[in-house]
Amino acid sequence: MSMSQTASTGSQMSGHHFSPEVHRSFRAFNPLKQEWIPREFKEATPEEIDAAVTLAAAAFIRYRKMPAAQRAAFLQAIADNIILLGDALLHIASDETGLPLARLRNERDRTTNQLCLFAALITEGSWVNARIDTGTPDVRQMRIPIGVICVFGASNFPLAFSVAGGDTAAALAAGCTVVCKAHPAHPNTSEMVATAIRQSAISTGMPDGVFSLIQGATHETGQQLAIHPLLAAIAFTGSFRGGKALYETATRRPTPIPVYAEMGSVNPVFFLPRILQQKGEALAGQFIQSVTLGVGQFCTNPGIFITNGPDLPHHFIESLQKHISTIPAGFMLTPGILDAYNNGIAGLQEQGAELLANTAASLSQASAALLQISAQKVLAGPSIMHEVFGPSTLHISAGNKQELYQLANTLEGQLTATIHGTEEDLREHIELVDILREKAGRLIINGFPTGVAVNHAMVHGGPWPATTPAAGTSVGTAAIGRFVRPVCFQDFPAWLLPPELQDRNPLGIWRMVNGNFSKTL
Amino acid sequence: MSMSQTASTGSQMSGHHFSPEVHRSFRAFNPLKQEWIPREFKEATPEEIDAAVTLAAAAFIRYRKMPAAQRAAFLQAIADNIILLGDALLHIASDETGLPLARLRNERDRTTNQLCLFAALITEGSWVNARIDTGTPDVRQMRIPIGVICVFGASNFPLAFSVAGGDTAAALAAGCTVVCKAHPAHPNTSEMVATAIRQSAISTGMPDGVFSLIQGATHETGQQLAIHPLLAAIAFTGSFRGGKALYETATRRPTPIPVYAEMGSVNPVFFLPRILQQKGEALAGQFIQSVTLGVGQFCTNPGIFITNGPDLPHHFIESLQKHISTIPAGFMLTPGILDAYNNGIAGLQEQGAELLANTAASLSQASAALLQISAQKVLAGPSIMHEVFGPSTLHISAGNKQELYQLANTLEGQLTATIHGTEEDLREHIELVDILREKAGRLIINGFPTGVAVNHAMVHGGPWPATTPAAGTSVGTAAIGRFVRPVCFQDFPAWLLPPELQDRNPLGIWRMVNGNFSKTL
Repeated sequence: MSMSQTASTGSQMSGHHFSPEVHRSFRAFNPLKQEWIPREFKEATPEEIDAAVTLAAAAFIRYRKMPAAQRAAFLQAIADNIILLGDALLHIASDETGLPLARLRNERDRTTNQLCLFAALITEGSWVNARIDTGTPDVRQMRIPIGVICVFGASNFPLAFSVAGGDTAAALAAGCTVVCKAHPAHPNTSEMVATAIRQSAISTGMPDGVFSLIQGATHETGQQLAIHPLLAAIAFTGSFRGGKALYETATRRPTPIPVYAEMGSVNPVFFLPRILQQKGEALAGQFIQSVTLGVGQFCTNPGIFITNGPDLPHHFIESLQKHISTIPAGFMLTPGILDAYNNGIAGLQEQGAELLANTAASLSQASAALLQISAQKVLAGPSIMHEVFGPSTLHISAGNKQELYQLANTLEGQLTATIHGTEEDLREHIELVDILREKAGRLIINGFPTGVAVNHAMVHGGPWPATTPAAGTSVGTAAIGRFVRPVCFQDFPAWLLPPELQDRNPLGIWRMVNGNFSKTL
Repeated sequence: MSMSQTASTGSQMSGHHFSPEVHRSFRAFNPLKQEWIPREFKEATPEEIDAAVTLAAAAFIRYRKMPAAQRAAFLQAIADNIILLGDALLHIASDETGLPLARLRNERDRTTNQLCLFAALITEGSWVNARIDTGTPDVRQMRIPIGVICVFGASNFPLAFSVAGGDTAAALAAGCTVVCKAHPAHPNTSEMVATAIRQSAISTGMPDGVFSLIQGATHETGQQLAIHPLLAAIAFTGSFRGGKALYETATRRPTPIPVYAEMGSVNPVFFLPRILQQKGEALAGQFIQSVTLGVGQFCTNPGIFITNGPDLPHHFIESLQKHISTIPAGFMLTPGILDAYNNGIAGLQEQGAELLANTAASLSQASAALLQISAQKVLAGPSIMHEVFGPSTLHISAGNKQELYQLANTLEGQLTATIHGTEEDLREHIELVDILREKAGRLIINGFPTGVAVNHAMVHGGPWPATTPAAGTSVGTAAIGRFVRPVCFQDFPAWLLPPELQDRNPLGIWRMVNGNFSKTL
C-alpha cells in the first residue's frame, strides 16, 4: 500500500494496515469556511479497537527490546516523513482547525523537534536513571517501558499534541507501543501523520503494531479504548470534563491504570504595583497578546490576572481595553469550543463579572474579552476561578497584600503561575512566591505563560485539576517518566544484566553508583 | 508533658499534644499468651482526625521551608530517641505482635538505619533532581514536597513500616508533614514510637503538627482520614483488600490524591532443572527458611514455586517435606491474620491443591504448609496464584519450557520474582527473564525474596495488584519520589531561586545542567 493510497482511507490504522470495516461515519468542520468537510471518516468498531490494542501488545514484546539506536532512528524517520508530507499537511490541518498556516508551520517544527529531542535523549541513554549498589546483595535499578499507551489527540494542537505529538514521542522513546485516538476535529490531519509514522515504522523495521490510529467522534469509542485490558496507561490533553471521565474510567477498571491527563488551568498572572507604574503600558500590550494568541486556545492561556492595591494605575486597565479592542475576532477550533467559550463568558457575568471591553465579532467568531470582578465576590465563591477556554481574561483587584495572598491561596492547581514585579515588588511580596509554588507546576517571573519551552527542565503539569497526577509533565524530556517504571535486578550475573547496568557501562551513560553520579563503576 | 506521662494516654497525638477526647475504645491482643491486653486505646473521633490533619497542613507551610540540615537533624533525633526507648519498646512490640525479641531488635535497627539513610540523603541533597536549562527562557526544575501525607502503619512491621517506618521517614525527609494511622494490632508500640517522634520534634524545633498519631480499630476511622480534603497523598502497606479500599476512596474524592499502597504478592520462585540436580538439597532448606521466616508474614514471602520438566529430582520435594515438618508452628500477628491464613490454605485445597506436608500446630497457631497443584489446573483458572499471607508455599510443576513460560505469563503483578538456575539453565530459559521483567519490581537470581536491602537501587513495588501505582517503591531512597512533584522556575532572578537551583550551587549537589550531570554550572 503506497502512502498516497493510505492517505485516503478514512479508516482505522491497525499497525501497518488500514481496516476495511464500515460502521458509523463522521466528518470534520472547517471553521474558517463554516462548513462541513465532505470527506467521511469511519468510527472505529469495538472489534477494530480490540485488534489495534492486541496488536500493540504483541508488538511491545519485540519493540521494548530494540536497542535505543533503532528506536531513535524510528523517531527521526517520523520527523523526516512529517516534513515530506509538505504543505499539504498544513493546508489540511488549517482546513480542519481554522489555525493559520504560519502557526501550523511553527507547530510542525515543534513536533519534529520534539521527536528529534526524544531521539537524542534515548541515544544518549542516561534517562533510564540507572542506579547501582554494589553491596551484598548487588542491586541494580533502571527504568523500563510499561506497555501499550493510549494517546488521545488534543483539539488545539493538531500536530504537537496529537498523533505524533509529545505524548507519542515520549512513549515510543521509552519503548512503549502506542494506540492513538485521533481527535475528531482533525481526522484527516491525524491520518496523514499516521501514514508518516507507518512509513517510518516499515522503513526502520519496527514491529507491526508499534503504532495504530483509531478514529471516532463518539464518547463510547474513547471509553472502549480506555477499558481495554491490555492498556498500560492513557495520555490525554483536553478539557477537565474529558480528562476526568477518562480518569474515572481508568481507576475503576479491574486493573486500574494511570491516566496522565492535562486538563488546563486559568494560569493566573499577578501584576505588582511598582512594575505597573514603571511599564504598565508595555505590559498591557504584551499581556493581551498572550491572552489572545491563537484565539486564546492554549492550555497556558492566562484566564485571570490579579493586581494589588487600590492605587492601580488607571492607564493600565485603559491600555488593556484599548489593546483588546484592536484584536480581530477569531474562528475557534470547533463550533463546540466556541459555544463553550461564549457560555463561559456569560457564566462569568452571571457570577458578577463586568465586561470591560471586547472585540466585535460575528456569531461564528470568538470575541476577545476583558472582564473584571471584585476580590470580595471571588473570595465569597472562588468557583469563578475556573478555566474559560478562549481569548478572555478576568481582572481581580485585591485591596491589599493580605487579600492578594488570600486570592492566591484559594486558587486551584495550575499549570502555570506568573508574577510581574520589580525586585522591590518581589521582595515585598515574597510570600506570594511561596503560595504559588504550592499551586502550579511552572512559576514565571516577568514573562508570560503561553509558549512552553521543550527542554530538560520544563514542567507542564500541576496539582489537580490542572493535571493528574500532579507529579508529571507532558512537555520536555522528563515526560518520558510517565511511561516507565523502575525495576531492579538483584545478584544478576554480568552477562544477564541489561547493558545499562553492566559494570563496564558499554553505553557510557550517567549512573548513580553507590549514591554518586558517575560514568564508571 | 514528660515522655513517661505521654506514653500512657491511649489517645490521639495531634502534633505535640495528646487529645483529651473519649469516644470508643479498643485493645490489642497478645498472640503468644492468647489474651487481650488490658490497656485501652481510644478510637479517634472525626473532630480529632480533622484537628490532626488541619494542624499538619499548617505545619507544612513552615516545615517545607526548613533547610535540609534541620530536617535531617529531626530524623536523626527520631532514630536516637527510638533507641532511648530501650528494650521496653521491644517487649511491648513483642506482646502486641507475637514477634520474637531478636527479630524486633533487627527491625528496630532497620528502622533507625532508614531514618539515618534519609537524613544522609537530604543532607547530600542531590535527591531533588535539579535540572537547569540556561536557554531563553531560563528554566530550572526541582522536586518539592506535596503536603500532608497519611501513613497507615502495617501489621507485620510494627517498627520498620509503621509509625516511624520507611513511609514516614521518606515523607518527613521530603519536607512533607505526616499524620500516621497506627495499626490497631499494636497501638502501644505505635504510641511509644510517636512519643519518640514528638520528643524529637520539640528538641529540634519542628513546628507543632509535623507529625500526629491517630489510633483506631474501625474501617470508618481510616476512611475518615482518607477523605480529608487537606491530605496530599496516602501511603499504605497491608492487604489487597485494605489497599484497594483506600485507593477507591482516594480516587473518588472531589480532589483525587495518590495512594501508594503496597498490597503484597505471591513472589514466585522458579527452580530450573540443572541447579536442582546440583544442589537441590541445599536449596530446599534455604527455601523453606524463606517461606517460614517470621511465620511467613512478609510481603516478599514466596507463596509459589515453579519447576520445569517431568524429570524433577524426587529428592527435592522430599527434602522440602522433610524441612517443613521440622519448622515449629508459629503464632501469627493477630487472630484475624491466622483465620485468613487457614482459610487461604483451605481455599487452595478446594481449588485442587494437594497438601504434601505441614507442621503440627495447635488451633491458635499457624501450621507451615507445602502444597502442590498441576500446571493444567492452574492454567485453567489462574486465580489460584493469589497471595496467602503466611508460612505456606504452593508447588506448580510445569511439564516443559512452554508450560513454564505460560505459567509465568499468567502471573499477576508481583513485588519480586526469583529464578534459581545454573548459567546453562538461565541461557536455556532466557525468555523467562524477559517475561518476569514485565511482572515484578525486583528480579532475583539465585537468592530469596525475603530480606529487602535498603539502598539507592532497591525497588519494592510492582504492577497491580502488588502495588499502586506500579512506578513507585516503598523501600530505599527512591521512595522519597512518592512524596514530591517537580516544579520549574522560569526566568527567576538569582536571589529568588531556591539554593538548589542557583548558579553557584551553594549546596554542592549533582544537577542536570543543559542535559549533563555536573556539580558546576
